[in-house]
Amino acid sequence: MTAHRLGIVGYGNLGRGVELAVSLQEDMELVGVFTRRDPSTLTTALEDTAVRSMDALESMPGEIDVLVLCGGSKSDLPAQTPQLAARFTVVDSFDTHARIPEHYAAVDAAAREAGTTALISTGWDPGLFSINRLFGEAILASGDTYTFWGRGLSQGHSDAVRRVDGVAGAVQYTIPSEDAIARVRAGERPELSTREKHVRECFVVLEEGADAEAVREEIVTMPHYFEPYDTTVHFITAEELARDHRGAPHGGFVIRSGESSPGTTQTIEYHPQEESNPEFTASVLVAYARAAARLAATGEHGARTPFDVAPGLLSPKSPEQLRAELL
Amino acid sequence: MTAHRLGIVGYGNLGRGVELAVSLQEDMELVGVFTRRDPSTLTTALEDTAVRSMDALESMPGEIDVLVLCGGSKSDLPAQTPQLAARFTVVDSFDTHARIPEHYAAVDAAAREAGTTALISTGWDPGLFSINRLFGEAILASGDTYTFWGRGLSQGHSDAVRRVDGVAGAVQYTIPSEDAIARVRAGERPELSTREKHVRECFVVLEEGADAEAVREEIVTMPHYFEPYDTTVHFITAEELARDHRGAPHGGFVIRSGESSPGTTQTIEYHPQEESNPEFTASVLVAYARAAARLAATGEHGARTPFDVAPGLLSPKSPEQLRAELL
Repeated sequence: MTAHRLGIVGYGNLGRGVELAVSLQEDMELVGVFTRRDPSTLTTALEDTAVRSMDALESMPGEIDVLVLCGGSKSDLPAQTPQLAARFTVVDSFDTHARIPEHYAAVDAAAREAGTTALISTGWDPGLFSINRLFGEAILASGDTYTFWGRGLSQGHSDAVRRVDGVAGAVQYTIPSEDAIARVRAGERPELSTREKHVRECFVVLEEGADAEAVREEIVTMPHYFEPYDTTVHFITAEELARDHRGAPHGGFVIRSGESSPGTTQTIEYHPQEESNPEFTASVLVAYARAAARLAATGEHGARTPFDVAPGLLSPKSPEQLRAELL
Repeated sequence: MTAHRLGIVGYGNLGRGVELAVSLQEDMELVGVFTRRDPSTLTTALEDTAVRSMDALESMPGEIDVLVLCGGSKSDLPAQTPQLAARFTVVDSFDTHARIPEHYAAVDAAAREAGTTALISTGWDPGLFSINRLFGEAILASGDTYTFWGRGLSQGHSDAVRRVDGVAGAVQYTIPSEDAIARVRAGERPELSTREKHVRECFVVLEEGADAEAVREEIVTMPHYFEPYDTTVHFITAEELARDHRGAPHGGFVIRSGESSPGTTQTIEYHPQEESNPEFTASVLVAYARAAARLAATGEHGARTPFDVAPGLLSPKSPEQLRAELL
């Protein structure tokens, strides 16, 4: 088996996750991490990972099969994906849903002109969740699709709690409403707003002398962030915060509920549960990097999304093996 | 939108489900049901469904885009799929896992020679479950995959109970073990045999004067069928059997549990819950019939399985619409 040679662009939590995920795939080798920072300042998760400056990429198109782009969707990827697609086969996890058509168009133009393949929006949402939304409505044509997020750490809401007077530290988890999920599973097909589908849970360390009841009140009545939700506040110690809330868990549910004939309810439920959101996203990216390499090798140039990728392309196994072992 | 013109071959519970599923798809029209029985003896679910003899197919290749084959995997499909693939684009739900490679080879040869497309094994297992097994191991390379079946009616086990002396009527449900599922969800990655993963529940109507305890004992100690399992027997009335146990529910779970780095557990869970197993399988078949029509139109000839089908091909929506609405 010829190994796919991968490069990582950008080294935050996602890039680190890709580094770890590549090490678990037997048909992949990591050429290196490419960074805009001074390479000597960067400590990688694995000892033998090479770190180079972005400039080094200039001379390397022949040495890399796929670049895995690990920048942010807000300011990095909109520029980086088209730029790098002009020289490399790339995969990204662009996740600003509303701007996907625009991103797709820019990347597609660059990749077509260069004769490369660019697989965008390949994380879990967009990505695996999108595929399950598509399957759900294609199969159960008469029905409704529900996406729930969590239990997961929300950075924006955690920051909002930290800004409250008297708060020394805090994290906030978004949690799917058990009641809402139960109604969907039962085939009720309720109309639910995002706020009806989720509840919020805060773990807060108070500053010395702070009034717990006042802090709780300010949090649960905060407009937009917490007021519209059912919010629970737990007060914990700084030690507990450091010990029990360091991870970045996430997950969610995509549920399609429909009728195949009047009165006959069918549901399909998809549910990832992630102890580390960036490592999970990275694992998805890396499987799609394999698919991107194969699409590029067969001359499928231009932008693609998970909707365009046959499942078999994600697996290291041959089509014969897949049919015999997994079908 | 040009409608895909579908024909149904074989009219049991599955064929009936396909008839209903096609009626829910806006881009499909049903040319008719084709049967080996006398067409006049057959009552369809929908009033305006045309019923014709299999012989009528001879003259119809130009009038049908895809034939949906609804025969059984044991004796019908092994002969029928290759035969009909020699003249039509076809889709089947061949589900004898061990014989898929053999079936694929026979169908592939016929379809390649004829320049048709034949999409096989497209139900939920094989089919949707297979895709989720593939995604699970491609994404979480270090992990284990668990398939649980049920809660579902088992015809073979129901028959076995009915053969017990003193039993007037019975149904048997196969149920995933809650304990086993909990261990898998918790990331324990236990080694589990099929019998450890499932429990059995029987609903039995006694003949007049039968000894309930003796019947229960004979059921739960029946070798192979029940003895190795945790089996519960409920005695009910003939009225309750007729009222509460007429459906053919099924479903199950595919769970992948793995580590993205040492100590960081990730799980992905896929769970259909079907009030009607044949109608659910039929709904999957019909979505894949759309994909088969598209593959045929772009000259992708030969046998294909769900592993070869990009998700977008299943949806009536355009790629642009899918990216804007579902990604």
